[in-house]
Amino acid sequence: MTEERDETVSPDPAGNGGSGPRLSRRRLLTTIGAGGAAIGLGGGGYALGHELRGDSSPQQSSTAAVEPFYGAHQAGIITPQQNRIQFAAFDVTTTSAQDLVDLLRVWTRSAARMCNGDPAVPDGGGQLAPPPDTGEAVGLSAARLTITFGFGPSLFGTPGAGDRFKIATKRPPELADIPPLPGDQLDPARSGGDIGVQACADDPQVAFHAIRNLARIGRGKVVLRWTQLGFGRTSSTSNSQETPRNLQGFKDGTNNIKAEDQDLLAEHVWVPNDGPKDYEWIRGGTYMVVRRIRMLIEVWDRATLEDQEATIGRQRASGAPLGGKDEFDVLDFTARRADGQPVIPADSHVRLAAPDINGGAMLLRRGYSFTETLDRLGQLDAGLFFVCFQRDPRRQFVAIQRNLGQHDALNEYIRHTGSALFAVPGGIQPGRYVGEPLFG
Amino acid sequence: MTEERDETVSPDPAGNGGSGPRLSRRRLLTTIGAGGAAIGLGGGGYALGHELRGDSSPQQSSTAAVEPFYGAHQAGIITPQQNRIQFAAFDVTTTSAQDLVDLLRVWTRSAARMCNGDPAVPDGGGQLAPPPDTGEAVGLSAARLTITFGFGPSLFGTPGAGDRFKIATKRPPELADIPPLPGDQLDPARSGGDIGVQACADDPQVAFHAIRNLARIGRGKVVLRWTQLGFGRTSSTSNSQETPRNLQGFKDGTNNIKAEDQDLLAEHVWVPNDGPKDYEWIRGGTYMVVRRIRMLIEVWDRATLEDQEATIGRQRASGAPLGGKDEFDVLDFTARRADGQPVIPADSHVRLAAPDINGGAMLLRRGYSFTETLDRLGQLDAGLFFVCFQRDPRRQFVAIQRNLGQHDALNEYIRHTGSALFAVPGGIQPGRYVGEPLFG
Repeated sequence: MTEERDETVSPDPAGNGGSGPRLSRRRLLTTIGAGGAAIGLGGGGYALGHELRGDSSPQQSSTAAVEPFYGAHQAGIITPQQNRIQFAAFDVTTTSAQDLVDLLRVWTRSAARMCNGDPAVPDGGGQLAPPPDTGEAVGLSAARLTITFGFGPSLFGTPGAGDRFKIATKRPPELADIPPLPGDQLDPARSGGDIGVQACADDPQVAFHAIRNLARIGRGKVVLRWTQLGFGRTSSTSNSQETPRNLQGFKDGTNNIKAEDQDLLAEHVWVPNDGPKDYEWIRGGTYMVVRRIRMLIEVWDRATLEDQEATIGRQRASGAPLGGKDEFDVLDFTARRADGQPVIPADSHVRLAAPDINGGAMLLRRGYSFTETLDRLGQLDAGLFFVCFQRDPRRQFVAIQRNLGQHDALNEYIRHTGSALFAVPGGIQPGRYVGEPLFG
Repeated sequence: MTEERDETVSPDPAGNGGSGPRLSRRRLLTTIGAGGAAIGLGGGGYALGHELRGDSSPQQSSTAAVEPFYGAHQAGIITPQQNRIQFAAFDVTTTSAQDLVDLLRVWTRSAARMCNGDPAVPDGGGQLAPPPDTGEAVGLSAARLTITFGFGPSLFGTPGAGDRFKIATKRPPELADIPPLPGDQLDPARSGGDIGVQACADDPQVAFHAIRNLARIGRGKVVLRWTQLGFGRTSSTSNSQETPRNLQGFKDGTNNIKAEDQDLLAEHVWVPNDGPKDYEWIRGGTYMVVRRIRMLIEVWDRATLEDQEATIGRQRASGAPLGGKDEFDVLDFTARRADGQPVIPADSHVRLAAPDINGGAMLLRRGYSFTETLDRLGQLDAGLFFVCFQRDPRRQFVAIQRNLGQHDALNEYIRHTGSALFAVPGGIQPGRYVGEPLFG
């Protein structure tokens, strides 16, 4: 999953390649060379410009990377975490199950194209039609774009009146609504959604383009409910990645599950290949919890280094646990100071979030920093856009967050202002569409 | 101004280097090597981690770059345009001119440090004080950070009662408030400000860190009025840069003034070294106009390619003028189609914005794309964060925008939702602070 695919084009089983040769944005770039002239592909409204990010030319080889869209699991989960995210939650407005299936089919095809560096929709239309693709990613490469789809509890509803698409009986118990949690200050306008789409890329314009074009394709069937840009990653999903810092200035995600931890992934992330037939469609999938966590950074910035480190349970500079020396030192919860108090305080974040304290529960995290303008009090609305994957949110995110929400010293400095949950179907094969086993 | 400085440390004339050797974040990285262990620098609360962006390793050499902070002009104007921006407008809350001067002195010193890849404030404080720097840029390099300061009309006020800082007589006529312009839909919460600070960098976390730390340093003297993150550049300020696309999918800024155009810079951007003594402080400086331009992208996306191209006056694919072949072809406003109509329509954006139509007026632009969440109607709040520099906004931005606001076909697809104007003093020399000639 982590290999870069070079010069390959994703399968196009639906035969929607349009007229003429299909050139990916990136392949064309290779053909014409950096700095080459833009080439118009005729009257189809498509033409592919030269590399636009030549200014930070070292980015080119990075942004040229293509992550495979098809596979055993959806991309964007254990893919080495990209630097940027554009997340979107959609509500389904059509009441026709066929409409929804048609949309998922087109979305799948379009997502595969974009992840390959191609336009969202093939050429065609000409001068007298709106351009098939919105164009802002023309000349950019795939930038390791991944698009991950999930279905929210509200899509399933409940058997009987609320069962819009006749799938209520296929709603797994793991997809229970997230209950109110201690300290929640959720904004409904930043929570929930029938369908969640995570677009991650190393170039934010590529991630934005993906969400915008999916929204456009979905017009008349879905509406955007909320969306969030994340500007910097705050976790690592591969051992090949360094641990980044979040907006509290601390290394975040040191103990995250990584792509290389096959046993942990099987135990904590992937839905296994057994269980009732009704829930067969989620096998090989996972559950995605999304939380918009506002950091009260003005308050945090006034705390002493000692307080900050006691709150997190780690040293700010090195990321090492309190009492340890290296970032990856094992957390020693038994160590005591001379005064008898634990070296890693009882209410510290790392202790309360640790698997030992939570019945062994772990999460695979993909976090991002965000910032928007000021709130009504003139405080910066910035923080952590927390995305995590797990096979049972009830025993994992919800259990851990209930514990944290009650006791965590960090609560003084954060507010959960958005929340959503999605069931993420397993990997997609060429010719299939996301969620096909659920609807098919 | 456009050369990257390597391994140099900016002067520290104020002697605020703290105890021990001063190591820039980046120099330390070089010392310990990529992937080396984090090094704690003792009890000062500072330690410098390893390179955090190792995942997109091609970024490293780009983000390692340092742009000079000191010079004949402020950095961030003709500096080759960085990929990201965090802009902030502050209001001054102190009524003491001395407080303000003290702040500008500390801000200048801090900005110079950050642009060099150093923490905003030197080491010190220890465990029992809040960390001097907020820490989220530890381990990151300077990422070509530039910090550009400007003073808004409201800082000067008017002679008499409104003259808080006794500088009203030094307000140049060019710093006239921007008058209401046709089509304005300005939000006061995204407009104005006593002091404007433009932080640009190739890493958004570095730009965010700069604004956050300046805000923190300014507590009790200034408050943040508004701030804006821009995720992708939409213009080029050097001939070495490719032309990027904006969120309308068109190449933007093709005809921008570039750093290499010394004559155009002298004519249109830099305030000359003459004029009344009261305005001596702005010599070598310029004026910065900032407009938050919402794009109605859902409407735009429904327009035909023909309409889009007629609206802009350029071909979407290549960026060439209508009737031309290459992006940089000269705009031929006299060319007519067979039906007698101009090839580049009379109400097209490029025609109405052209110097020929505006008494020769030109701007140096530094634009960025932005996106936030949805508006109350469920439409995406995204568009162009337009920043431009000029020596007389009355004859340049205001004149051009009055013309555009009345006639531009593009008005159907955009709304100006924020506006601000700042006088940008000339370059800063080591040991001096920004605006010193105004207050000193």
